[in-house]
Amino acid sequence: MGFSPIYSKHVLEKSYKHWATTFLDEFGRQNKAHLIMLARQGIIDSKTASALKKSMSKLDSTMEIPGEFPEGVEDLFFYYEKQLELLLGEKAGSLHTARSRNDMDTTVFRLYVRKLMISLIKQMLLLAGALIEKIRASREQLLVLYTHGQPAQVSTLAHYLSSFLIEFLEGLEGLNASMRVVNQCPLGAAAITTTGFNIDRQLVSDLLGFERPVPNSYQAIVTSHWLTYPSMWFKSILNDITRLMADMGHKASCEVGMLSFPDELVQVSSIMPQKRNPVIIEHIRIQSGMAAGDFQSLIDLFHNVSYQDVNEVADAPITSFTRGCETLSGLLELLEETLLKVSVDERKVDDIAIATGTTTTELADELVRREAISFRTAHVVTSAFVKSGYSFETLRRKFSELVGRALEMSDLELRKVLSPRHFVQVRNVPGGPSISAMESVITFIEEKVKIITDSLNGLIKNIVEREEQLSIEFNGLG
Amino acid sequence: MGFSPIYSKHVLEKSYKHWATTFLDEFGRQNKAHLIMLARQGIIDSKTASALKKSMSKLDSTMEIPGEFPEGVEDLFFYYEKQLELLLGEKAGSLHTARSRNDMDTTVFRLYVRKLMISLIKQMLLLAGALIEKIRASREQLLVLYTHGQPAQVSTLAHYLSSFLIEFLEGLEGLNASMRVVNQCPLGAAAITTTGFNIDRQLVSDLLGFERPVPNSYQAIVTSHWLTYPSMWFKSILNDITRLMADMGHKASCEVGMLSFPDELVQVSSIMPQKRNPVIIEHIRIQSGMAAGDFQSLIDLFHNVSYQDVNEVADAPITSFTRGCETLSGLLELLEETLLKVSVDERKVDDIAIATGTTTTELADELVRREAISFRTAHVVTSAFVKSGYSFETLRRKFSELVGRALEMSDLELRKVLSPRHFVQVRNVPGGPSISAMESVITFIEEKVKIITDSLNGLIKNIVEREEQLSIEFNGLG
Amino acid sequence: MGFSPIYSKHVLEKSYKHWATTFLDEFGRQNKAHLIMLARQGIIDSKTASALKKSMSKLDSTMEIPGEFPEGVEDLFFYYEKQLELLLGEKAGSLHTARSRNDMDTTVFRLYVRKLMISLIKQMLLLAGALIEKIRASREQLLVLYTHGQPAQVSTLAHYLSSFLIEFLEGLEGLNASMRVVNQCPLGAAAITTTGFNIDRQLVSDLLGFERPVPNSYQAIVTSHWLTYPSMWFKSILNDITRLMADMGHKASCEVGMLSFPDELVQVSSIMPQKRNPVIIEHIRIQSGMAAGDFQSLIDLFHNVSYQDVNEVADAPITSFTRGCETLSGLLELLEETLLKVSVDERKVDDIAIATGTTTTELADELVRREAISFRTAHVVTSAFVKSGYSFETLRRKFSELVGRALEMSDLELRKVLSPRHFVQVRNVPGGPSISAMESVITFIEEKVKIITDSLNGLIKNIVEREEQLSIEFNGLG
Amino acid sequence: MGFSPIYSKHVLEKSYKHWATTFLDEFGRQNKAHLIMLARQGIIDSKTASALKKSMSKLDSTMEIPGEFPEGVEDLFFYYEKQLELLLGEKAGSLHTARSRNDMDTTVFRLYVRKLMISLIKQMLLLAGALIEKIRASREQLLVLYTHGQPAQVSTLAHYLSSFLIEFLEGLEGLNASMRVVNQCPLGAAAITTTGFNIDRQLVSDLLGFERPVPNSYQAIVTSHWLTYPSMWFKSILNDITRLMADMGHKASCEVGMLSFPDELVQVSSIMPQKRNPVIIEHIRIQSGMAAGDFQSLIDLFHNVSYQDVNEVADAPITSFTRGCETLSGLLELLEETLLKVSVDERKVDDIAIATGTTTTELADELVRREAISFRTAHVVTSAFVKSGYSFETLRRKFSELVGRALEMSDLELRKVLSPRHFVQVRNVPGGPSISAMESVITFIEEKVKIITDSLNGLIKNIVEREEQLSIEFNGLG
Repeated sequence: MGFSPIYSKHVLEKSYKHWATTFLDEFGRQNKAHLIMLARQGIIDSKTASALKKSMSKLDSTMEIPGEFPEGVEDLFFYYEKQLELLLGEKAGSLHTARSRNDMDTTVFRLYVRKLMISLIKQMLLLAGALIEKIRASREQLLVLYTHGQPAQVSTLAHYLSSFLIEFLEGLEGLNASMRVVNQCPLGAAAITTTGFNIDRQLVSDLLGFERPVPNSYQAIVTSHWLTYPSMWFKSILNDITRLMADMGHKASCEVGMLSFPDELVQVSSIMPQKRNPVIIEHIRIQSGMAAGDFQSLIDLFHNVSYQDVNEVADAPITSFTRGCETLSGLLELLEETLLKVSVDERKVDDIAIATGTTTTELADELVRREAISFRTAHVVTSAFVKSGYSFETLRRKFSELVGRALEMSDLELRKVLSPRHFVQVRNVPGGPSISAMESVITFIEEKVKIITDSLNGLIKNIVEREEQLSIEFNGLG
Repeated sequence: MGFSPIYSKHVLEKSYKHWATTFLDEFGRQNKAHLIMLARQGIIDSKTASALKKSMSKLDSTMEIPGEFPEGVEDLFFYYEKQLELLLGEKAGSLHTARSRNDMDTTVFRLYVRKLMISLIKQMLLLAGALIEKIRASREQLLVLYTHGQPAQVSTLAHYLSSFLIEFLEGLEGLNASMRVVNQCPLGAAAITTTGFNIDRQLVSDLLGFERPVPNSYQAIVTSHWLTYPSMWFKSILNDITRLMADMGHKASCEVGMLSFPDELVQVSSIMPQKRNPVIIEHIRIQSGMAAGDFQSLIDLFHNVSYQDVNEVADAPITSFTRGCETLSGLLELLEETLLKVSVDERKVDDIAIATGTTTTELADELVRREAISFRTAHVVTSAFVKSGYSFETLRRKFSELVGRALEMSDLELRKVLSPRHFVQVRNVPGGPSISAMESVITFIEEKVKIITDSLNGLIKNIVEREEQLSIEFNGLG
Repeated sequence: MGFSPIYSKHVLEKSYKHWATTFLDEFGRQNKAHLIMLARQGIIDSKTASALKKSMSKLDSTMEIPGEFPEGVEDLFFYYEKQLELLLGEKAGSLHTARSRNDMDTTVFRLYVRKLMISLIKQMLLLAGALIEKIRASREQLLVLYTHGQPAQVSTLAHYLSSFLIEFLEGLEGLNASMRVVNQCPLGAAAITTTGFNIDRQLVSDLLGFERPVPNSYQAIVTSHWLTYPSMWFKSILNDITRLMADMGHKASCEVGMLSFPDELVQVSSIMPQKRNPVIIEHIRIQSGMAAGDFQSLIDLFHNVSYQDVNEVADAPITSFTRGCETLSGLLELLEETLLKVSVDERKVDDIAIATGTTTTELADELVRREAISFRTAHVVTSAFVKSGYSFETLRRKFSELVGRALEMSDLELRKVLSPRHFVQVRNVPGGPSISAMESVITFIEEKVKIITDSLNGLIKNIVEREEQLSIEFNGLG
Repeated sequence: MGFSPIYSKHVLEKSYKHWATTFLDEFGRQNKAHLIMLARQGIIDSKTASALKKSMSKLDSTMEIPGEFPEGVEDLFFYYEKQLELLLGEKAGSLHTARSRNDMDTTVFRLYVRKLMISLIKQMLLLAGALIEKIRASREQLLVLYTHGQPAQVSTLAHYLSSFLIEFLEGLEGLNASMRVVNQCPLGAAAITTTGFNIDRQLVSDLLGFERPVPNSYQAIVTSHWLTYPSMWFKSILNDITRLMADMGHKASCEVGMLSFPDELVQVSSIMPQKRNPVIIEHIRIQSGMAAGDFQSLIDLFHNVSYQDVNEVADAPITSFTRGCETLSGLLELLEETLLKVSVDERKVDDIAIATGTTTTELADELVRREAISFRTAHVVTSAFVKSGYSFETLRRKFSELVGRALEMSDLELRKVLSPRHFVQVRNVPGGPSISAMESVITFIEEKVKIITDSLNGLIKNIVEREEQLSIEFNGLG
């Protein structure tokens, strides 16, 4: 070829190895789909088709892809074509009729991105399913929730986790919707404008399990969306995870201590046995930041890049995507460990709930409802109560002073109203943490999970069926 | 209040002014919806409701919001409550029953973000509509398209613009889908966990034109998605615009010169009259970059922020959102100017198409089809033709040398096959640039536009109706 | 002019108003410096110079810059030239001899950026100075420091704050160094390649207080560094601030409570009086994130932008720079409030220090030193002590069991070794928290501050002197 | 250990392998430096020191680091300690006296980052040196330079390349300055606050070739600057490279064609032989974007991360740094290929220079100087000349019409003034492209290169000497 050794090393060789280790399966499948279509449309005759089929099958089982960059070929595509030529002579070139590197490559990449996306969506759905169980099981586990870093109100672990799960599912929904953008078939766009041959783009698209051909052939080879849309969603989901980790890290810190983890997730110190450092949270944060960086860099890569077929939509940037996905997959496992194995220290929750008066707002509300006084008066009475260090005597005195009659509620009733559990139980409004209110939250989540699951399963089913069909039709060629 | 003057100046005053100039309308509407609900549910009695209604109506028409930060109040909410108190006394506080600043504020912000989104989606749909007309009108306007900065194939302006328009609509679809995440009502979440009062969240949600209440009350006040999801999509759309500008800038450069603009979009030089600098393209690029920066900064703002109610979901970051939307709206107008007023210099297109041999691939294909030779042979023949400087004689000689018989095609036929217009006409494959193939592309686009338009119109209709209902019910209070 | 109204509105008008409100002073100064140079070099004759001087002086005192975009001029430069022409006729144009919009504009922008940088460096140095006092005063104020969110060792507030201050000064040093890149004079570069006139770039550079002319005239008008280098440093400093806020927020949280703030920096709740929410920390975090976003967007704006004179180095992006600087200046005031007014709750520090055994490593070390046992043995003994709940008896028993003799240290000695204050006092190693070790840290900081202060003062002195000289020489023209 | 297998796999194992493949050399060196210091200070006795020395030497030559994560150890550090213990028993632990994982790890990382930085600074200096030769050799090679995508003025390749080189050196200067922040020794900070042992931090720092110990021990283990500062500069340099590539891509495009490349850097098409696609430029752009993404993600990783010792400053993020550096190193080779092998097509330059009237401004200037007419008049005359299609007759007519006398310059003189070469030759002003003006530019560059080279050489010399000293002193231990 005569390329500069430096160019060869830093561009061609890198790309060759990337293809050889990553895209062979996808490369093979689109070759077969294209061949079937050429034969069906009569663009190549059945004899040629049969010959091609046989050689390709042979290569499938015999060809060894050199690990090192072979001399005299520019890339893996040419290496393959050369092997085909050795078997078949000039006819080998017919496979490339009505096709170009442009549409072929980007088809391979979409198949690959689709595969990674499916794998991650599946993993996320499993995590969601496991979390639903955890949520169900922790509907009575009280937990103090915070605003601006300060304890604010009592709720439950289920309420808290289900909030995050809905965030997570909103991201997953977006990711899943972006699959429809990814899952379109560019083949047939050829170099840019399709071809004068009478190709059948729909057939190729079907055989590869795509939803449809990309509607405009120029867009087929220039768009970044098959790479940037999933990246955008992964980044968004990862950002949400960093938020959860920041909060859980605080709740698990030794001073707060409401959340605990089993020994296997904690690094202990022989010198400071009370230190139970859930560093897994920190590692999830870091890995989230790093994966988010990978995905962000893919988005930013396209800033001011010409709206043409450019190498930004070629194989090199996909390394970042793969790496981001791998990190994400690992940290999702870490996240699942963390969320499924976290438990609540009830005593600590109670301590904080009481010490920080997180339930006194309920007392004020109850006075409004039961004693029919104004909100403002109830507020003044309760404030006096809090300032006195929770003295019922003060409460009663202030009440009669302002309302002009004795407070009817007994101490027992007051105590009940102030109890953390009561605080949660009366929050029956949809969206609230009481057991009954949580029913609708869980149902909501389950429906969301079902919709995404059905969509994914439909997709997978179609792909599997099409792969079988592809195989059958390919074998039928001769 | 006794706040530090520095804190007051850089936090409270800024926020007060932001509220006073930006959120008054949304603030008023949620107050009314909440009041109607409190009355309907019997949480406050009808007398109190009526008194509140009257005072609020009075304030609507008489209250002046001080431009400067008024002494003795922390923010606009307290200023309003104080004014209400001056009219109504202690009862004023009843309006705040079963509500908190947390859910109230984030409801106001969602209403505001929804308003900006509606306005931009509307503008984008208008742009799309205008572009469709332009596309229709330019289906026969040839244009050379490039790969990797080099002329590659002939296509049409319509093919090119419709490719971008599909990208744009994919972004708009995503943006529109994110509206469903934004358009949920947080009111009733109260501080965090809803309330013990028997509130009707659905009613409030309906009265404010939301699709439904946020399903989990914790998520209602902690999620960033109402801000980050639209930001993510705006950023994505803006990135696509920078790509188009990079490409159009090249096509409009004086050396390429295929695209021209009317004088009103061009800066000329009296010294260099041949320079016709379409700086509008450059300004769209810059404004896109700046707006993208605003939206990106909103996404990054939440990295590692505790999953609690934090001030990142308060008013300050919304300034970046507003600014990003304003810049985006302006540059969409610039983009519309650019895309609607661009024209093609046909002579230049022809020159480039011919000089760079962009149509010779079609000759090779035609030889394959018409002369039934292999693709490889056709390629060798055509290459010889090109290297000879497009000599038909060479072409014929090489053909007979390799095929063993004379080429049947006449010079006229050859010339026709090589003509740019022919190149486009035979590309009838779906997705291609021929007039008939473009039909399906345009239909595809129109359907996409229709779906988004219908969705937006439904949303707007609902909001308008609910606003009327809100007004009627509010007036009905007394 | 005949520009499209949309282009006019979103590009020209915006730019006109930006110039009219922001760059007038800088614009005036470079005009004068250029005129003086033209006269001195004999490029324009003294009569013309004198006439120009008079008209420019007149405009200085009489010209009103319309707030609205005036019709018939493209921008402020042309507006000014037109006013000059009204007074002076054709001669007005001589001012523009050997100059171009390109070099003129970028000179104005550098003067402006330099002004903002000086103001912020000054503010940061004042903050540093105030912090040094705070550090001096808090050398004996114990504070527990954390690793991975867990209490780890006792140190002092001074040690902690001086660590941050060194980070801050490293950023400030970088920012100050970037001033040398900013503070170069582009004037004389003309459109791109300087001019055939015998101009004196050094003189103009001197008159405007620059360090020197930009060495290469192409670089003078294409480089982004005067904008991106300070942006990069501001972003870096802001990122460091977010880290400090994350940590201080935790130390000030109600569960930890080691750091306290006066009432004026705290938002309290009448219902939960124990909640003392230092939201100022949160607001610093948010404003840091927003300003960092502004600066980051300027850096990213140049990705893939052609290495030519482009409008990215024109006025529009400077709005982000100005906004970032304003936010930064405000949050530095908030930061100063926070750092100067923070105090330590000694009791809490002691509680945490003891309860989490943060000083037991010192006991192990002391055993190694005093009892000449191996590190490992000391570690085992101390671990037993900790696990026993700090029982001296256990400690002694384990010691004699392992070492074969009684521990010599008395209970009093043990208690002293375990005391937080002792822990700090023995850390005399350079860089450590003991009073004597802190001396060298403070000296180090003071030297750093002095170097930057001297550099800034030198710069300011030169600018002030040059401004006077400019004024004298301008007035001397006629 | 009992860690969760998932935690083990995604955190511990990853980290172990990273250490085993990347940091062994640095790990060994700091062990030795620490041991020498402990012995010298009498913190461990000479017998122990000698025993440790012998065992460590033995491990140096015999220990095999398992490629797979060995069971029962948490990380490489513990693996090493265990091996030492197998040889030495309990005494092995003495090596860790007065040290902690915190200071040890971050010392290792700084040594590693320093190594990568040195290697890249060296490479950049070589590139700079080679570019200087290219610049010298191309001082007479005319080149048209552009503004806003339009041809503007004639200059030279040397002028253009030296402009970029200065940008590049400004970045390199910043990078080199950040070395002083990186090259400080954290050892002795121990866990956070140094130690009560009488360690000699200066000695350890010297033995490892650092400039000095980190002045504050808390900062030593919490700062991100040793990672973020070089990242910031690499990103900045990479951004500058994307700008150059965008511009060179345009100048090398087939329509402009001023820049050419040898065949080995060009991908040709057999069908379109006139297409000579310098895709190397595109690949540099992409690799720059990807490496910039890696470095940016490191900066963003620290947003809102607690100002404590956190795992963000541990080994995981260093993978991104290493990858960024590798990509950067590769693309610098590609850049060197591109810049050294680029040549100018003189004919094309002349064509564009003439056709776009890039030299007519010089004619206007010359009229002002030679004919003593006003700038404005000269401008009007020249404009008429341009509009006429460069007719000297029109020029003369307009001149006498306006000035009232015949133009004195002959056609020959006019032609000379209008020649591109003349345009360049008269630009003698410092910073301009004439041969003499370029002298000072080249001198300026050479001085900058020399300063950085001297600084780097001094650093390397010191490191080499210290390594020898370390080796001698270590061997002297027994």
